[in-house]
Amino acid sequence: MVIVMDGKVNEGHINNLSDKLKSMGFKLQMIKGEDKTVIGIIGDTRKLLSFPFYSYYGVVDVLKVSKPYKLTSREFRELSTIIRINEVTIGGQEAVLMAGPCAVENEEQIDIIARKVSAIGARVLRGGAFKPRTSPYSFQGLGERGLKMMSEAAKKYGLLVITEVMAIEQIDMIANYADIIQIGARNMQNFMLLKEIGKIKKPAMLKRGMSATIEEFLLSAEYILSGGNKEVILCERGIRTFENYTRNTLDLSAIPAIKELSHLPIIVDPSHATGRKELVGPMSKAAIAAGADGLIIEVHPNPEEALSDGAQSLELSDFERLISELEQVAQAVGRSMHLSYTSV
Amino acid sequence: MVIVMDGKVNEGHINNLSDKLKSMGFKLQMIKGEDKTVIGIIGDTRKLLSFPFYSYYGVVDVLKVSKPYKLTSREFRELSTIIRINEVTIGGQEAVLMAGPCAVENEEQIDIIARKVSAIGARVLRGGAFKPRTSPYSFQGLGERGLKMMSEAAKKYGLLVITEVMAIEQIDMIANYADIIQIGARNMQNFMLLKEIGKIKKPAMLKRGMSATIEEFLLSAEYILSGGNKEVILCERGIRTFENYTRNTLDLSAIPAIKELSHLPIIVDPSHATGRKELVGPMSKAAIAAGADGLIIEVHPNPEEALSDGAQSLELSDFERLISELEQVAQAVGRSMHLSYTSV
Amino acid sequence: MVIVMDGKVNEGHINNLSDKLKSMGFKLQMIKGEDKTVIGIIGDTRKLLSFPFYSYYGVVDVLKVSKPYKLTSREFRELSTIIRINEVTIGGQEAVLMAGPCAVENEEQIDIIARKVSAIGARVLRGGAFKPRTSPYSFQGLGERGLKMMSEAAKKYGLLVITEVMAIEQIDMIANYADIIQIGARNMQNFMLLKEIGKIKKPAMLKRGMSATIEEFLLSAEYILSGGNKEVILCERGIRTFENYTRNTLDLSAIPAIKELSHLPIIVDPSHATGRKELVGPMSKAAIAAGADGLIIEVHPNPEEALSDGAQSLELSDFERLISELEQVAQAVGRSMHLSYTSV
Amino acid sequence: MVIVMDGKVNEGHINNLSDKLKSMGFKLQMIKGEDKTVIGIIGDTRKLLSFPFYSYYGVVDVLKVSKPYKLTSREFRELSTIIRINEVTIGGQEAVLMAGPCAVENEEQIDIIARKVSAIGARVLRGGAFKPRTSPYSFQGLGERGLKMMSEAAKKYGLLVITEVMAIEQIDMIANYADIIQIGARNMQNFMLLKEIGKIKKPAMLKRGMSATIEEFLLSAEYILSGGNKEVILCERGIRTFENYTRNTLDLSAIPAIKELSHLPIIVDPSHATGRKELVGPMSKAAIAAGADGLIIEVHPNPEEALSDGAQSLELSDFERLISELEQVAQAVGRSMHLSYTSV
Repeated sequence: MVIVMDGKVNEGHINNLSDKLKSMGFKLQMIKGEDKTVIGIIGDTRKLLSFPFYSYYGVVDVLKVSKPYKLTSREFRELSTIIRINEVTIGGQEAVLMAGPCAVENEEQIDIIARKVSAIGARVLRGGAFKPRTSPYSFQGLGERGLKMMSEAAKKYGLLVITEVMAIEQIDMIANYADIIQIGARNMQNFMLLKEIGKIKKPAMLKRGMSATIEEFLLSAEYILSGGNKEVILCERGIRTFENYTRNTLDLSAIPAIKELSHLPIIVDPSHATGRKELVGPMSKAAIAAGADGLIIEVHPNPEEALSDGAQSLELSDFERLISELEQVAQAVGRSMHLSYTSV
Repeated sequence: MVIVMDGKVNEGHINNLSDKLKSMGFKLQMIKGEDKTVIGIIGDTRKLLSFPFYSYYGVVDVLKVSKPYKLTSREFRELSTIIRINEVTIGGQEAVLMAGPCAVENEEQIDIIARKVSAIGARVLRGGAFKPRTSPYSFQGLGERGLKMMSEAAKKYGLLVITEVMAIEQIDMIANYADIIQIGARNMQNFMLLKEIGKIKKPAMLKRGMSATIEEFLLSAEYILSGGNKEVILCERGIRTFENYTRNTLDLSAIPAIKELSHLPIIVDPSHATGRKELVGPMSKAAIAAGADGLIIEVHPNPEEALSDGAQSLELSDFERLISELEQVAQAVGRSMHLSYTSV
Repeated sequence: MVIVMDGKVNEGHINNLSDKLKSMGFKLQMIKGEDKTVIGIIGDTRKLLSFPFYSYYGVVDVLKVSKPYKLTSREFRELSTIIRINEVTIGGQEAVLMAGPCAVENEEQIDIIARKVSAIGARVLRGGAFKPRTSPYSFQGLGERGLKMMSEAAKKYGLLVITEVMAIEQIDMIANYADIIQIGARNMQNFMLLKEIGKIKKPAMLKRGMSATIEEFLLSAEYILSGGNKEVILCERGIRTFENYTRNTLDLSAIPAIKELSHLPIIVDPSHATGRKELVGPMSKAAIAAGADGLIIEVHPNPEEALSDGAQSLELSDFERLISELEQVAQAVGRSMHLSYTSV
Repeated sequence: MVIVMDGKVNEGHINNLSDKLKSMGFKLQMIKGEDKTVIGIIGDTRKLLSFPFYSYYGVVDVLKVSKPYKLTSREFRELSTIIRINEVTIGGQEAVLMAGPCAVENEEQIDIIARKVSAIGARVLRGGAFKPRTSPYSFQGLGERGLKMMSEAAKKYGLLVITEVMAIEQIDMIANYADIIQIGARNMQNFMLLKEIGKIKKPAMLKRGMSATIEEFLLSAEYILSGGNKEVILCERGIRTFENYTRNTLDLSAIPAIKELSHLPIIVDPSHATGRKELVGPMSKAAIAAGADGLIIEVHPNPEEALSDGAQSLELSDFERLISELEQVAQAVGRSMHLSYTSV
């Protein structure tokens, strides 16, 4: 950590701060420049993240030299984390496919989807039972009843289940049905929830908040890892910008950036990011080309009847067409895909 | 609600959609333009917020004509909501002052602050006992112990208490100590929490999410109002933009905008918005001039020792100086302030 | 165009507006909803882009139904525009490679680069002679001298030249040396410059402004097309967001979006978008996978000595490695690349 | 300037960079931390703004310690710049009012406006003769004919003239009619134009670009100052964010921020920032309360007939009402206003 002080302040002001830091056990080194004095702080500066530097007279800038997260960083763990659930590996050589409806609507819907996406090559069935809706007047999901339907359909067709948890008191119940627990973008900084997820033994997929920087995203992952749960999957789902043709702006540069900064796997959600089904195909291919470890895609047997987010759901036939193109992109960047039907 | 369809689609496609809408009880009117067909939907279109219009062949745009929120809107309630707690009114003629430390640190700290801010004219003591911190390694607050200290200090000096709730299971406990329950920016779309707050009888202050539009902000308020709790105070605290000199960009135009769109009172938090104590004064005056119903300001007797967010905390003497200037701005726009010492 | 009026205004106010519009030759159709009145305007509403609707009493919303641009739109020209310069085609089946240094520095530098990028398969040599620099104290480019060096090197190795024009009075001079004239992001809304570029007979590449929406981007292209110059290439180069790990956020979803909305070719600049050379490779592959018609990449024989933007320049050896991977991605999405050495 | 290097790189890599910097005349000091090495560079580091630090092996971060602008900074000139034009002072104790139509439309319009705004207390007549319009199909202004009308009306009623220059070749002509030359937001980084404005002897008002940081804004001002023209007025006019209720988000915190960082006067344009006339009043008061040196406001005698931007133009009677309230806010923060009619 590097503290920049105005070069015109006197010795006494510099001592005020440096004495305090020394008393906390840090070693200091000072550089006197032409109009600024720079203090380098040596030691575990993560303890200083909330230190009130700017309250000290003469401090004009505080520059972080080390990353504020630790367990999440590539420096802490050089090898990429691979998460194994049954026969599925996330973060390995295979680009994993998760697919399903925005919301579970009824047994028939989820059965049709599960059968089809499994046949196409998906590994994980996604689907919402508790829906975080912007408006209280929108469909809020089927609740536990939806989870049951989803879990049965997944088992029947050999899929894992991923679904979203929205509150601490749901964790146990959802862990009963899900193989991967999703924390939604709106809860990325629900720190109480993150702490509880850190205590369980179940892989968690953390979605990036709509206005979260990559650093904050990794700090939220750190909450889970520091609680003891090492199986965290990150998910890029678009950030909010001034562009309004797409619902959000999918930040694909976050993928290679996170691959450098962290050892955790990263999945991309092109459906929520774009909000437009015609963009899902191209952005899926782009995500895999950029190095994503997988995709989570919304599909619906009949989008006209979807109770939620039909605008971004692919029809099953479009999904199927996309997958065979995706595989070629995956191969071009040295990744494989699990396509059931390719044996044909 | 107005649906725009490509003018080249045939009658059948238009009927697909219009039959569906009619079967749901809506009346329709159609306008055939040169290259587009426009369908006006008449009825309570809030039910259609999650209707999958874009899944219908030929639909190119969906335009909202009515606001998606109802109870929150100025149309629903023309008179501004005034919230009365003991002798304090929020949303009335007086611009209310809330002040206190970022985090409660110990009995002495909170007592000094409460005494001083009460003497200056604040009505409400703010302070965090459970802190939503970006990093798991930052100070997380004193918990219930902090609430007790705060509540005692507030009583002693005739102040109300506002503090943040971070999870559903904390609501009852916090309601024991607080007069106003704060929902933080990071929880603005924690819909489960909003629903529970809607069920209690206690004023709530909802902070705008860092990337929330004004419409989403009002929809989150609608969650609380639609649960039965009518005493909602809004709080503008800055939105995230590319500008990085300030922590966030304080969106003061949201104040007159919200005054037009809604009947709820709105408070401004210049401390978190700017993240720089030297900007707190000018932005406080600007907020009052723009029509804010009050301010929530961080102060600290000794910011150099603050355990949290010292950079943005005003020293008590600076706070005192600010208040007398603030009062003049308030008077210039026809508002009063409760300044204890003005009796001198 | 659809105008929404408050349902409570009286007939007179509605007539005020509708009489005015009728007098301008438009046909109107009205829909009376429960609390709003909707007026559909039929005719060429592009004339109404600056009509002061909101000044009419009772108008609450103005909704565009038609796109504000015409010549640029896919509706105007269904076939994708292919630009032919000598033997190079941009917008066709081949994904075109443009490469070169940020700034031309000296004869030797540009000769080494031109030789190498030509050998690798680039079609176009990029390079700045007049540099738009944020700071007046940064290197501002070699001027016409740099153009000459670049033009000679390009001829020698069979490359086309692309370089940026910064002011109207430079157009003729630059057109002497360049095969494609680039309009930089900072000049995307320098409308006087756009109009002049519209009058010349030379392909132009228009970069998206840092805070331009896709619609504004296409409207700026419309300025050039409406002047008579039909050979416009678009270039996505990142938009400004709150994320600061990357210099800008590369908006790859703009590629399929623009492919839908417009017939113009679109190129991606991953170097300026990310500002980090280690992200250039993954984002180049992602861009091609998303459907880009080509790439413009900064390279340098010795980035440590670059006078401008070294941080984002690929070393020539890294560039070479990237290209062979890129070709595979291109093939996966049905595109070819012109790789000189593939004859080997 | 402080360079952060990975602590694991060997001596040779550190020497590579440090030898280069020493050869350029800089003094260096090094701090070896636990996992990073920090190099402090002492000297005039503005020369290093485009140095390719990241191309040196092991460099992980480059931290600016000094500001990249000089002449513009408060450190360079402690006293606030006051610009005097005839009897008007900008940047002094008086908060200056500039008002007028978006575009000059005809002699009658500009005469009515000039007479009225002068009577109310404005000092400067604003008005566009060359309009930078997003669409080529919008009204583009009357050109020099408009300038003449404006200049005559201004003289008749004792007002100064401010109008926008859009290209280098217009400068001389516009300088003939205008007392202050405006550089629009879209040209804030038209560096060729800035350089030419730097060579003339005429006050210039530089508007902040829609996506410009405060630092970039001040660097653009530096272009003008470093050319020799010291009379630069800054103008905050809103930045682009995800919020779309307002056209842009007026960043009022930029006012006290710029007052700290720079000695130049700063004016606020609430009309373009908000795009909604009902927000102009509250934001004008807020701007003055935040410390702005003046306002530039769009007015129109009959907004329903405005050829440009009617939605944000105040009617003259509304403008008059606003001004008397504004004066009270100005007084509350120790500023005066020149209100002609106050003599009554």
